[in-house]
Amino acid sequence: MTKIAIAIHGGAGTILRSMMTPELEREYRAGLESALQTGWEILTGGGSALDAVEQTVCSLEDFPLFNAGRGSVFTHDGKNEMDASIMDGRTLDAGAIAFVRNVKHPIELARLVMEKTPHILLAAEGANQFAKEMGVEFVPDEYFFTEHRWKQLQDAIASGTVELDHTVSNAERGMRNAESDGAHSSQSAGGSGQTTENTENTEQRRNPKSKIQNPKSLGTVGAVACDASGNLAAATSTGGMTNKKFGRVGDTALIGAGTYAENATCAVSCTGHGEFFMMGVTAYDVSARMKYRGIDLETAARQTIERLTDIGGEGGFIAVDASGNVVLPFNSDGMYRGYCTADGETSVEIYR
Amino acid sequence: MTKIAIAIHGGAGTILRSMMTPELEREYRAGLESALQTGWEILTGGGSALDAVEQTVCSLEDFPLFNAGRGSVFTHDGKNEMDASIMDGRTLDAGAIAFVRNVKHPIELARLVMEKTPHILLAAEGANQFAKEMGVEFVPDEYFFTEHRWKQLQDAIASGTVELDHTVSNAERGMRNAESDGAHSSQSAGGSGQTTENTENTEQRRNPKSKIQNPKSLGTVGAVACDASGNLAAATSTGGMTNKKFGRVGDTALIGAGTYAENATCAVSCTGHGEFFMMGVTAYDVSARMKYRGIDLETAARQTIERLTDIGGEGGFIAVDASGNVVLPFNSDGMYRGYCTADGETSVEIYR
Repeated sequence: MTKIAIAIHGGAGTILRSMMTPELEREYRAGLESALQTGWEILTGGGSALDAVEQTVCSLEDFPLFNAGRGSVFTHDGKNEMDASIMDGRTLDAGAIAFVRNVKHPIELARLVMEKTPHILLAAEGANQFAKEMGVEFVPDEYFFTEHRWKQLQDAIASGTVELDHTVSNAERGMRNAESDGAHSSQSAGGSGQTTENTENTEQRRNPKSKIQNPKSLGTVGAVACDASGNLAAATSTGGMTNKKFGRVGDTALIGAGTYAENATCAVSCTGHGEFFMMGVTAYDVSARMKYRGIDLETAARQTIERLTDIGGEGGFIAVDASGNVVLPFNSDGMYRGYCTADGETSVEIYR
Repeated sequence: MTKIAIAIHGGAGTILRSMMTPELEREYRAGLESALQTGWEILTGGGSALDAVEQTVCSLEDFPLFNAGRGSVFTHDGKNEMDASIMDGRTLDAGAIAFVRNVKHPIELARLVMEKTPHILLAAEGANQFAKEMGVEFVPDEYFFTEHRWKQLQDAIASGTVELDHTVSNAERGMRNAESDGAHSSQSAGGSGQTTENTENTEQRRNPKSKIQNPKSLGTVGAVACDASGNLAAATSTGGMTNKKFGRVGDTALIGAGTYAENATCAVSCTGHGEFFMMGVTAYDVSARMKYRGIDLETAARQTIERLTDIGGEGGFIAVDASGNVVLPFNSDGMYRGYCTADGETSVEIYR
């Protein structure tokens, strides 16, 4: 029995109630609610899951507080480079872009890659050239400028760190309670006894990457949907990492890592410390567990989060199956998230 | 019981005996045997799987007839852009690069990304800048120039096609038996009755990408190995697609799609029409089937090739498990391949 459903996220990480003002929280909630509304209207109007996730992510890209589209963070060179991907669970077709600049809605460009080219992933100058040929909407550098992001970059350069969004700056961090700041680090989460498989290998598999980076918050936006025909789709978009260098590509642009959709199983959009989602092939892992173990979405999602924790990764994901079931698991302190389901259930949440 | 083993490939596609001269075949076999020997000496000397796959792929990158390193094909702009990735099955750590130019051994650069950065994938200018900072060996444009590749580009530009290596040029194709040329196209392979799952969705899932491209042969090199400690590793390297535009990234640079390694299951390196390996998350799919279905490498590999065929993809992969079992399945006419196992079995093959 197919029931329409949509879920969204606006990033995961160290999002603590103590860091939030009531005004800021209202702003975040309004951004999530507005995006949900966009997708829900498409689904209730008989639109496709693909249209719903694309337009919902466009709405999240327009919202300046999330690290995607307008709210993208700055690279080391003071530029905004964006990644996005989209996948159609009906055909397994997919499109993605990495390092595009000045494109208002990167997720629209990802869909054009899917529909207008024989490729799946276009990157860098080539992707920008493709954007021009497609005639998508371009915006000037100033569109992306916010004082908050610029300050994040200056702080990151000063401290020599590469930070994921919603990163707590070093200056901000000094004012915060050290106890709550460390309680949910990826290292301690890995030793929390939640792991159910390969525990004998945990020490071996603890990845060196976790020693180098310790992101405090992790930014991306994404949407997953199930339409009235039981078709699934997933879309993810990000502005990358503050102060990133060397042309780093994260999980957001990668089918199987940050985004996956297959009607027979589920649609998934991830957010978090991208490298671990790449090592864990996290989005596809949820689908593979459902198909190969014959388990339901909720069980598969719980196991995938346990594996992510086991390998030292922090973040979460949203997922939907073809019956309209929705899950929104994460192992970080918080994740901006929300969903609407056919039985009238609607929710927008931020904290654990 | 751990037994050392290594397997390699030099690309898959329409490789027909009727196209090959005895002299050319001897050359290909010598290239494969030399690369195998490199890795085998490392493994028998007590070296790690990681060192074995890296050095074996370096040897394949030096061989001018394979589409990687020295033998890379030309992009639309007459340049050589290379992708590579490597994964350590012991830690799940990985490194990858996309679009590097003038680097002699892209696989060495991928390993440096793994070991010297907090990232997994670096692309384009940033990856080239990283290569310079690491002091890897650079070679001039002439190093990559071969008449054969240049002619491939001119033919591809003339016909307006984007071709994968080992592509049969249009001129060459005209001289060939039309019957054998078409018999194993991705379309007909999809309908050959080999599929075991989701057959009800086959028509829906037949991807539009297969209508746009019809590659005749598909080039990449790769190696997988199991060392005396039971550690697994996988490495893949490619020179991309002849006449490629728009900064297309294929499966070779992507963990989970073209490359995957996990001690508990297997190490996999893929070659073929990259977009389908990305949609199918093919390398990780083998591992997921072993772990979640509890089946052996051979059974999982057969199922993964069936799925690849089902979604319209053409190519193959090599894989090894921690007991030293090796598989080299493909659904194309041929795949340049070889392996050595601890019980003294050694083989180099080209055709089906």
